[in-house]
Amino acid sequence: MIRFDSDYIEGCIPEILNALNNTNDEQTVGYGEDEHCAKAKALIKKAIANKDSEVYFLCGGTQANVTIISSILKAHQGAICADSGHINTHESGAIEACGYKCLTIPSSDGKIYANEIEKMINDHFDSEVAPHMVQPGIIYISFPTENGTIYSKKELTNISKVARKYNIPLFIDGARLGYGLASPHNDLTIKDLAKLCDVFYIGGTKVGALFGEAVVITNKAYQKDFKYHIKQHGGMLAKGRLLGIQFEELFKNDKYMEISKHCIDMATYLSKGFKAKGYKFKYEAETNQLFPIISKKKIAELKKNFSFQYWESYDENSDVVRFVTSFMTKKENIDSLINAL
Amino acid sequence: MIRFDSDYIEGCIPEILNALNNTNDEQTVGYGEDEHCAKAKALIKKAIANKDSEVYFLCGGTQANVTIISSILKAHQGAICADSGHINTHESGAIEACGYKCLTIPSSDGKIYANEIEKMINDHFDSEVAPHMVQPGIIYISFPTENGTIYSKKELTNISKVARKYNIPLFIDGARLGYGLASPHNDLTIKDLAKLCDVFYIGGTKVGALFGEAVVITNKAYQKDFKYHIKQHGGMLAKGRLLGIQFEELFKNDKYMEISKHCIDMATYLSKGFKAKGYKFKYEAETNQLFPIISKKKIAELKKNFSFQYWESYDENSDVVRFVTSFMTKKENIDSLINAL
Amino acid sequence: MIRFDSDYIEGCIPEILNALNNTNDEQTVGYGEDEHCAKAKALIKKAIANKDSEVYFLCGGTQANVTIISSILKAHQGAICADSGHINTHESGAIEACGYKCLTIPSSDGKIYANEIEKMINDHFDSEVAPHMVQPGIIYISFPTENGTIYSKKELTNISKVARKYNIPLFIDGARLGYGLASPHNDLTIKDLAKLCDVFYIGGTKVGALFGEAVVITNKAYQKDFKYHIKQHGGMLAKGRLLGIQFEELFKNDKYMEISKHCIDMATYLSKGFKAKGYKFKYEAETNQLFPIISKKKIAELKKNFSFQYWESYDENSDVVRFVTSFMTKKENIDSLINAL
Amino acid sequence: MIRFDSDYIEGCIPEILNALNNTNDEQTVGYGEDEHCAKAKALIKKAIANKDSEVYFLCGGTQANVTIISSILKAHQGAICADSGHINTHESGAIEACGYKCLTIPSSDGKIYANEIEKMINDHFDSEVAPHMVQPGIIYISFPTENGTIYSKKELTNISKVARKYNIPLFIDGARLGYGLASPHNDLTIKDLAKLCDVFYIGGTKVGALFGEAVVITNKAYQKDFKYHIKQHGGMLAKGRLLGIQFEELFKNDKYMEISKHCIDMATYLSKGFKAKGYKFKYEAETNQLFPIISKKKIAELKKNFSFQYWESYDENSDVVRFVTSFMTKKENIDSLINAL
Repeated sequence: MIRFDSDYIEGCIPEILNALNNTNDEQTVGYGEDEHCAKAKALIKKAIANKDSEVYFLCGGTQANVTIISSILKAHQGAICADSGHINTHESGAIEACGYKCLTIPSSDGKIYANEIEKMINDHFDSEVAPHMVQPGIIYISFPTENGTIYSKKELTNISKVARKYNIPLFIDGARLGYGLASPHNDLTIKDLAKLCDVFYIGGTKVGALFGEAVVITNKAYQKDFKYHIKQHGGMLAKGRLLGIQFEELFKNDKYMEISKHCIDMATYLSKGFKAKGYKFKYEAETNQLFPIISKKKIAELKKNFSFQYWESYDENSDVVRFVTSFMTKKENIDSLINAL
Repeated sequence: MIRFDSDYIEGCIPEILNALNNTNDEQTVGYGEDEHCAKAKALIKKAIANKDSEVYFLCGGTQANVTIISSILKAHQGAICADSGHINTHESGAIEACGYKCLTIPSSDGKIYANEIEKMINDHFDSEVAPHMVQPGIIYISFPTENGTIYSKKELTNISKVARKYNIPLFIDGARLGYGLASPHNDLTIKDLAKLCDVFYIGGTKVGALFGEAVVITNKAYQKDFKYHIKQHGGMLAKGRLLGIQFEELFKNDKYMEISKHCIDMATYLSKGFKAKGYKFKYEAETNQLFPIISKKKIAELKKNFSFQYWESYDENSDVVRFVTSFMTKKENIDSLINAL
Repeated sequence: MIRFDSDYIEGCIPEILNALNNTNDEQTVGYGEDEHCAKAKALIKKAIANKDSEVYFLCGGTQANVTIISSILKAHQGAICADSGHINTHESGAIEACGYKCLTIPSSDGKIYANEIEKMINDHFDSEVAPHMVQPGIIYISFPTENGTIYSKKELTNISKVARKYNIPLFIDGARLGYGLASPHNDLTIKDLAKLCDVFYIGGTKVGALFGEAVVITNKAYQKDFKYHIKQHGGMLAKGRLLGIQFEELFKNDKYMEISKHCIDMATYLSKGFKAKGYKFKYEAETNQLFPIISKKKIAELKKNFSFQYWESYDENSDVVRFVTSFMTKKENIDSLINAL
Repeated sequence: MIRFDSDYIEGCIPEILNALNNTNDEQTVGYGEDEHCAKAKALIKKAIANKDSEVYFLCGGTQANVTIISSILKAHQGAICADSGHINTHESGAIEACGYKCLTIPSSDGKIYANEIEKMINDHFDSEVAPHMVQPGIIYISFPTENGTIYSKKELTNISKVARKYNIPLFIDGARLGYGLASPHNDLTIKDLAKLCDVFYIGGTKVGALFGEAVVITNKAYQKDFKYHIKQHGGMLAKGRLLGIQFEELFKNDKYMEISKHCIDMATYLSKGFKAKGYKFKYEAETNQLFPIISKKKIAELKKNFSFQYWESYDENSDVVRFVTSFMTKKENIDSLINAL
């Protein structure tokens, strides 16, 4: 079985395993106050060219989303997001379990737009009904989105302007950040992105690490007391250095972008393979998630040797499915798949 | 600097690093549905001799506590615990953040007793005031406790009887379970413990793993839907196999008890060293946490070469401090410490 | 200014004021354990012909919704509802603040239908994604809806069948229950409604009382410990008798239906007035809430002497507005309004 | 049966019933935006001589406590209070249900003191453990306390100084405020009290109203968005004027203090009766709650004609019980009781 169901089906880059081996006997303080975390933070701050930011390491995406949103919102506020946003669909109600409503904007491509966000803010702050409706307190977007699409620099700038106009922080879920940045369709640098938002995170779990996400809070107003929220949400790893060690390796020698580029190259190669065989995509194939439309018969046949994910029904005879490449995807496996198409 | 501040200052047993290396290229399904998790679960079920139990892997202790308690309690219920219990003191309000009150019993040694628990249950269910008071919905104890003490088989059996009499589940926090079981003062087997409670967890983070706790739900009534709660609390690791791989190694060839015994041997050796030099302990030195009473002057001197934790004030001239050994503690480091005493 | 903005702009039926006067010096126990509450509960049980049900009195609608939903759901569950449902729109996130997600179905008339509900249940329980998605734990509908529409007996029966097929309780928000039951379009009795759901409430605030809602739990499975939740949500009035006294008056001599009928007669009279003048309605004018489409110019003119609510934009020149009649609406006021149209 | 079990066993002052009668046909806007609420707020602001304060009306004490605390705290913060504080004992976990921990200080008389509060703040903010412990975010005290005792001006001033030193708001639960202010042992005016705290409430339910509490936020920093929290906690009464009408009557012509004084006079008269018969009190008899120690035999005898509350066991033969007078207590009923002693 060759797997294309996700980007978390393999382990990590070999540099991380080496580093874990080399540091295993070291004695360090716990809870992320160690030297490895310090070094990793410095590398990330350098990469985003923002000295005022603070970097924190958490274990996974749901945890990062919940911790960030809980640390910023007050009890009467909610998070503006696409209805397809991860926090609204696949986190088992984690945001609501902390007391916060997802204020959803319908989206067909995974993205939400500045004018839609501004309209929602105005509707909710309208004086007549205001205290009866949840107050927008944060804007959540994913880069890339759950549908593999990415925001252009212009689109993100427009959202950022709305966020700042209404003094509502902008949070970018970067669980697959590297794959967005490495996309040939992308015109944003990580520095641009850091400047345009108030908080974002750099996904490690899906981009080279065993596990872990680096949360970057660029807006100083939201740094205070953030560690309390990490602890409260179970994200303060006793052996916090494990996360420092991993991000040290990822951000040494531009490794993060190097492996992201490999993944995107593989996705592009696969995407071309699909197109060459006449397949169409449901969503624009911009990053490492591809959503081809395939006949049910062909799907059944492919399933014998390849794993991939059902996404949604297309028509009577066809479904949309998801193929995902990763930082470890081998070209030969894609060749096998293309041959089978 | 030689560190005795905690049992999470080093990495993991070498077998785990080897296993991570050997499995790194494997492609597996995510979220803990892989073969490694399946094998680790089987090994644990065999160790506790309980086929009806279910095993789940989580990332850390606070996360395990919150996930278990949230999955069992309803909104009007709370958790009976010692006032010194970890959930009541050092989890940054994680239990309350999920909506649940800690119903605390004052404790001087970290333990709570069957008669105290029964009294609290009766007081709270008293018909006149009942709906005005939080209903006890779970009993939380730690084995070993936060003060390094352990429950005897008789004490635990008595608590278990109360729990079953009132149909309130008993939950044992085993963040340091191995060190309790390996204690020369202990008369409980892991099978006894599994039988006497409804849910417990086997600490990995502090006992040989990089990170991870194995939650064992022995009472079938509480297994349903538990995975939803893992996901909601950010505990469903995308690369879930990381936890399976670690617990496979820990439960192969009785490794878990072997390394626990080493840790306890080191603690006993250190404890004898303290006693030989005339030091007294604040709490019974039963496991790998030692709480000697040391003059402030001596503490300042020791701090130059050794790290350990301030616990509480003893008198004008002395404090209680905490020294902790781990599965990796070296005898030579203890010798250095004893010489310095 | 003649007010048509809502059905809570006046006081209560005179019988209630008399009863409050007559009982003011009585000494009774608190928290709803008094004789007046007992009598009112008996009257309601008789009206719905269901001896196994339990009746509880709460202060208002948001409180009733939150208390019922919190008492039934577990932390990983959510409430299926129309996207226009009151709990999803105008309760300032009260449901989410208790930790629960609103699982919304898009609705154009305020109603949701059995097939839509069944589809959502199946989608969410689908084994592949299940623990990543909130589990449907209760079905919430309003009778009448927020758009003034009502469910037919057939529609409600179909929803009830789905609820029972999947063992998910059906909860009917009856903040305006009387006005639904008194509608000439209605083919349900209060007994039918009680039989088809698991819990509902009888609105008092908008139907004759000063304040108060009577929650009826017909399914015995959900009665246990409900009082804890009332207390927790601030609904256990110290002078609980105030609610008993009011519902005693409302359910003596069929007063509740008598005043509801008056309100509906007034709405019908007004509705005919609108139609006679050539106005169209956005939603079916089935109960006491009317949603005519009126030109902005005319709205501005009417606003000088009448109060009513902006609902939504219709087109460039017209808006949908809401006119509401109540149990105290005077025919002469409607005549003034019709003249002004 | 003559009742002394609480101060909420009767209705309200006759002026309120008259006002409800006189205003019943008025049409007003809902949700507390009406003229009656405006007038009542003005009367209260005048009584406390603080123009910058904002006044809000809620339905009951638990609701007021939860709404205030939720509106001020962030998710990682908790409320410092006496272990006997109402929020910690008899609100069915309402504070925790909103996500907040009660940080309790042991109290033998219902009061907590400035030095204890300061010590708790310092312990929790200690840099080593800080993010692992709940951050103190509000100080909650009751005036009078749950044991009928009151703070002196000096004691309250000292607490206020600690609160301001650490920038933690001070909240005074005044469910029985009038009875504290009218106590002969009291040296505080309502103006003093308003100045020394950041938020307090004036109890109506137990002091002359049918129901309702007037929340006064004197610190402008905590006024913003408070209405959202009222709505979220079910406290925004549709017919909000009901609360305005009641507080208008209570604060016209100093009625609130007049009826409070009557209640205290009755309590003093009863207290003297107890003492004359040789009874002792468990807590200082400072307000309208008396806690005499009575033999079990005598209690059984008294129970035939009088209702009062069991408080706690005193010794083998005696219990502490609670007798409460109210704004409506009749002298003749106290005479009957004294005769029976």
